[in-house]
Formats: sequence, C-alpha cells, structure tokens
Amino acid sequence: MERKSLTAAVSSERIQQDMATLACIGADGQGGVTRLAYSPEHWKARAYIRDRMESAGLQVREDAAGNVMGRWPVGLTGPALAMGSHLDSVPHGGRFDGPVGVVCALEAVRAIQESGFRPPSPLEVIVFAEEEGARLNHPLFGSKAMAGILDPRLLEQMKDRDGVPLARVLEGVGLSQERLSEARRQREEFLAYLEVHIEQGSVLEERNVQIGVVTGIVGITFMEMVITGRADHAGPNPMERRKDALLGAGRIITEIPVLVAQTGSAAARGTVGAIHAHPNTINVVPGRVTLGVDVRHKEKEEIRKLARLIDLKAGDICQKSGLEFLSRVLTEIEPVAMANNIVQAIGETCEEMDITCMQMLSGAGHDTTSMSTLAPVGMIFVPSVEGLSHCPEEFTPLEDIVCGARVLAGTAAGLINNFT
Amino acid sequence: MERKSLTAAVSSERIQQDMATLACIGADGQGGVTRLAYSPEHWKARAYIRDRMESAGLQVREDAAGNVMGRWPVGLTGPALAMGSHLDSVPHGGRFDGPVGVVCALEAVRAIQESGFRPPSPLEVIVFAEEEGARLNHPLFGSKAMAGILDPRLLEQMKDRDGVPLARVLEGVGLSQERLSEARRQREEFLAYLEVHIEQGSVLEERNVQIGVVTGIVGITFMEMVITGRADHAGPNPMERRKDALLGAGRIITEIPVLVAQTGSAAARGTVGAIHAHPNTINVVPGRVTLGVDVRHKEKEEIRKLARLIDLKAGDICQKSGLEFLSRVLTEIEPVAMANNIVQAIGETCEEMDITCMQMLSGAGHDTTSMSTLAPVGMIFVPSVEGLSHCPEEFTPLEDIVCGARVLAGTAAGLINNFT
Repeated sequence: MERKSLTAAVSSERIQQDMATLACIGADGQGGVTRLAYSPEHWKARAYIRDRMESAGLQVREDAAGNVMGRWPVGLTGPALAMGSHLDSVPHGGRFDGPVGVVCALEAVRAIQESGFRPPSPLEVIVFAEEEGARLNHPLFGSKAMAGILDPRLLEQMKDRDGVPLARVLEGVGLSQERLSEARRQREEFLAYLEVHIEQGSVLEERNVQIGVVTGIVGITFMEMVITGRADHAGPNPMERRKDALLGAGRIITEIPVLVAQTGSAAARGTVGAIHAHPNTINVVPGRVTLGVDVRHKEKEEIRKLARLIDLKAGDICQKSGLEFLSRVLTEIEPVAMANNIVQAIGETCEEMDITCMQMLSGAGHDTTSMSTLAPVGMIFVPSVEGLSHCPEEFTPLEDIVCGARVLAGTAAGLINNFT
Repeated sequence: MERKSLTAAVSSERIQQDMATLACIGADGQGGVTRLAYSPEHWKARAYIRDRMESAGLQVREDAAGNVMGRWPVGLTGPALAMGSHLDSVPHGGRFDGPVGVVCALEAVRAIQESGFRPPSPLEVIVFAEEEGARLNHPLFGSKAMAGILDPRLLEQMKDRDGVPLARVLEGVGLSQERLSEARRQREEFLAYLEVHIEQGSVLEERNVQIGVVTGIVGITFMEMVITGRADHAGPNPMERRKDALLGAGRIITEIPVLVAQTGSAAARGTVGAIHAHPNTINVVPGRVTLGVDVRHKEKEEIRKLARLIDLKAGDICQKSGLEFLSRVLTEIEPVAMANNIVQAIGETCEEMDITCMQMLSGAGHDTTSMSTLAPVGMIFVPSVEGLSHCPEEFTPLEDIVCGARVLAGTAAGLINNFT
C-alpha cells in the first residue's frame, strides 16, 4: 500500500461537499448550527451521512442509542478498525466540532477504496449520538452506551434540558430506553478506534503546525450547585435582611477562577457555563439559583482535588451569606491515555506525508474517551482558528480538514496491515 | 353616616370567600400563584371579580388595556371616588399582593351599601391590569394606560418575557394595541383614589401596628445590562484567554450591594432580579449575559445618582474584563407623595375605629403611582408576615385584611361627604 496514492485519493471536493451540506442542517443564520441530540436537525444530519455511507458501498446499521455504523468491505468478518465522531452540537455551536471527524472517517474509507487497497480486516465508520451532552446533560451518551458504561441508576432519572424524561426523548426518534443496553459492543469487535477532531484551542494555529497527535485527554467533572435563599420583593425590606441566592451565586462565580489559578497548573479549568435563577423577574430578589460547573484537569487526582476545593468554597460562601447549599456530581469522566503504538503510527504517517505535527493533550472530552474501554485509541487534531469552539465563530480551513483525512487514511491503512 | 355601622357592615366572611377563591386561580401547588398579566389565569381571576361586582349591583365596564371598572350607585354621574388594585402576579408570587386591595375595595362598596349610606358621588372599584410588569417588563402598564402616560415609542417595540410582541399579547385576550389610547381617562372623572395593599415589608409586624398610613412611594428605575464576551469551549483554551460574560456579570452582581451600602441611605435598594446567560450550557464559557437591575430610592435625585453609579461601575468592570457593556433604562417611576388631606383622613378613621396606625413610606411602586397624575391619592398598608412578598410564603392574616377594608370604607365614606 502506497501512502502517496492514498494522499491523492483523498478528495477535497467530497469533503467540502459533505461539510457544506451538514453546515446547513440546523444552521442558526449566524454561521453556527444548533443540532441538539435526537432533535429533527440531528436526525437529518445523520440521515445525510447514512446516505453517503450507502452510496460508498458501506453496510449500514443503527443501534439502540441512535449511533450509526457503516462497515466495509461488506461480507468481511472479524474485528474492525473503527473511525468516527459525532453530528450533534451544543446550542449555537460551530460547524466543525464533530462533523470534521465523521466526514474524515467516511473520506478515509472512500480514499482507501479508490487507492485500490483491499484491507485484510473491515473498516468501520461510526457516528455517535449525544457526544456533547447539551440535550441530556450527559456527554458521550451514545459512545458510553456502545461501551456499556452508562450508569443504569442515572438513566432512570435522566431528563433533557427541558425536563423531558429520557424515555420520551428516545421515543421521539423511534428509539426505546428499554433496549438501550443492546447498543453495547465487545472488545473483540475492534482492532482500534481513531478520531479526527478540531483542536478547540489555539496551539496548532499559533505554532503553525498542521496536525496535533493527541497523547491523552483531560478528565472532566460536571457539578450542579443549588443555592437556596428566599424570594422577596425588591423594595420594602432592608437589604441586610435579604437571602439573595443570586448574590451568593455571583460570589461563587467570581471565586472559581481564583481557585483554578491557585492550582498553579496550566491544565486546570473551572467554568460556570449554566445559570438558572428563580423566579427570574427584575423586581424580585432571586430565591433559588442553579449553577452548572465544569472542572477539568489532566490528572485524575488533581481534578478531584480542584472539584472538592470549588465545592467547599461555594458551601462556605453560602453559609456566610445565610443561604442553603446543595451540590452533586453529574458526571465524572476520567483522563484517558492514547495507545503508544497509535501515537507513533500517526506521527510516522505525518512524516511520510510531509505534514508537520506535534504531540499535545486534549482539553476536551471526546467519543474516544468511551471507546478507550473497548479498543486501543488514537486522536488526530486539526487547527481551530483562534482556538474558538462551541460558537458560530468556530472555523477550520478546508485544507486543514483534508490534511486530517489524509493522515487518518494513511494511519488506518498502516495499522490495519500491522494488526492483521 | 356612622363609622360604627360601617365597621359592622364589613364582612369577614365575604372577604375570606373572595380571597380564597382568587388564591386557587393560578395556584402553583406550593402556596403561591402564577397569574401573569393577560394569561388565562389572570383573565379567570378578573372574571370572578367582575361577577362579584355585578352581584353587588355595580355597573361594570372594561377598557382597552384590560382594566375593569365597577361603579355604584348606578345612574349617579359626576366624578367618582375610586378604589382598587390588581390581580396579576409575578411568577410564583403570593396570594395577597394585589387581591387584598381589590377585595377591600369591593367590600368597602358592599359595606357602604349595607350601612344604608347613600353617597352623594359615585364610588368606583378598579382592577388594574399588568401592575407587576412581570409579563411585559413594564410595571403599572394598565394604570399608566388609564392615566395616559404610556410612552408610545416604547409600545411599538414592547415584547413580553417570551419575546411575543405587545399586539399579540393583547390580541390573545381580545384587546387591540391600536385602541390602547382609548383607555385614557381625565382628571375631571375622579375625586380621589385610595388603595389598600400589603406592606411587603416587616415594619408593621415588628412594631405590632395594624395599619400603615402611606405618605409617599419610592421611585424605581429598571435597567437592562447586556454583557458580551465570547462563547468558547470550557476545555482547550487557557483561562486567561477567555472573555467570560458570566464572570463579568458575577462581578457586577457582587458589587451592587456595596454601592447601595455606600449611599448610607436606608431608603436605597439595588437588586439583580433577572439573569439570562447564553448559550447557557455547562461546558461552554458564556458569551453573553443579560441582567435585569432594579434600583429604588425615595428621592428623585438620589435614585438617578445610584442608578448612574451602578451603571458606571458595571461598565468599568466589563472594560477591565475585556467585555462589551451595553445598558439601557427600561422604566423610570418617579417618587410620589400622597395627598395630605387623605393621609390625615386615614389617620382619623383609624383613631375613630380604635385601630393602631403609623405613617410610613412605600418601598414598592403601586397603581397609586399612576393614579396620582389623575387624582389626589392615598394608600393604606396592612401587615405582611415577616415582610415576605412576591413569593409563596407571602401572608397576611384575615383579620388584618378585614381591618384594611374597614379603614378603607370609613375613609372613603368620610372623604366623599367632604368632597361633595
């Protein structure tokens, strides 16, 4: 198998066509997209890629979590080299986070087909559902279902952002919560899993490097904090008699970056991404505020330490302000290491293709996190302009996506020979 | 006319029946009510009182803003002594804010009827619409329409809390924005306006006084602040590169009570009652936050000064945090003085009825504010347990409401004789 013929077979036109079509599904008119998981927009994007897979001769099936899998060559059995990503987005998210990995995976198969290389084991393209967790507050939902690592107790109480129970969300697209466990697959089914993704940071752009070879993914903890005071009229009572839940929340919000800075670690992050005040009316002192807090670190112990620090500080602030404080961990995603031989294979492919690359950590979680429990994994990052992501301004030039698809195709072809 | 016969004619049973019926309309199951203006619940409450008015022989009509007016004796022309309040509520508000004044006004007419006193001028009970401003972000909407002091430029852009244009809100209950100006009434139509209201503070309860004789109403300014940063993924980019709009908002929220305290005035208030973050998802740095800020003071100049101080400080915080800051005044309600002769009449009525009273300021705006441009006005406060208001815990014992109705009936009967 010649890497040169693969490089030539990767089609910039096909990638552009697929990316442009997906960008219009759920387009928000401001350059971004809103494709919440299991929404009509998400399902339309999924149907488009399904159709592209079938046109390329892949055998397509879907599972009980809404993941889509396309396999080639048809009829070839045994463990597969899988590649993929997701098509769901955050509200008003970007056009690249997810679709780049799906389109590169599909293009890698199409390029391998055209190069004349007949792989000794099957290739599989996977489109995972609800990677973002923006709908169910549970990121990696689809890939966790495939890995069999969804917590059944959480599933029973799980609701979407509008309070709709999980069972009804799934029924809305013809899926059934009762059959969710059927999505589970086994280690024996996979040789490896590879994912192309936008960096979502600005390191590659700033250093003018084409490809990031990911060595590990940071761990993430999602916490929910509920601050309860007492709703009251904004006029009559003296200020000092108030139990203002939003004032307590404000103090917590301003304190979190201080605690993150105190860790002294460049890999630590703390974010309050979501806030809901109640009753949320201009002339009423807020009686209750809920905060969604996101804590990240590359070390398992450090993330726990930071989450605990933030939790203690928030509780302390509330106590001093006469407010009640309740918090709970919504999700804990442990840091993940990439397989050494895959890290090495990606680096070698870049070198052979004259593509510049550097090793780096991923600050965001990915479907690769779940897949690491089923297979050796590797990730290929392409640059994000100004490091912007989860917003309409998210951007990656076409030539960088093409570059990602080439490295993915080359790495996949190389690995599948070695594995088999 | 004997005050004693009036005292006896005020019916605790009728007041209890009316208050209990209203409490069930829009009940939130937690002791509170949600009756947003022009909602089906608001309209149902209005229909109940309309029916009670008609049963008591009042001649009822409605105006283009949704205010309801009932007049007695039927056929008697000339300027009226008006009494009233409102039936709309904030979301999850209390059962007493508004209904107490409506029920007391209606009961005052019924008691005067039963006492055998035939007033030389008509009495009028008015139920104002959208006093709270919780639906349209514009408090005193109905009473301002009656006073002819709604700003026509504001009307054109006015939307409700869900973004529905004013015209469609009004159409929903069969009203028309084009006819709104027809709600306007003239000074010649009124002798005076009286309103019973819960104190919404704890002064009367703490001092064990039955009635508050209001001497003035504080001024209120509603401001909207829009803080714009940049939505970004919570993981990859370093914290110091963020433009976190919620962090800026948190700093503003914590600074406002400091600025209020610095005024050194017990009559100053500053509240952030409403917050909306965008995109409001746990793993995205918020790119935009909107705050609803409520500023109050009894002096016209002081409220402007405080609002300006808060605005400047918020702008300063945003500039230092690399955030854009836009603010605008949504509503300015000037402080209002009660008519001296009415303040005196209420005090004398209390004395004659052996009811304890004290003079006080109102920290909240009321329909009386708008009515002060049409007539001499007076307000009668009844105690609020623990000073709680705009929440399900809002409470006033039945005997205190009965006391308010007696003072209202006595004051109205006394004034109408003097005026005529």
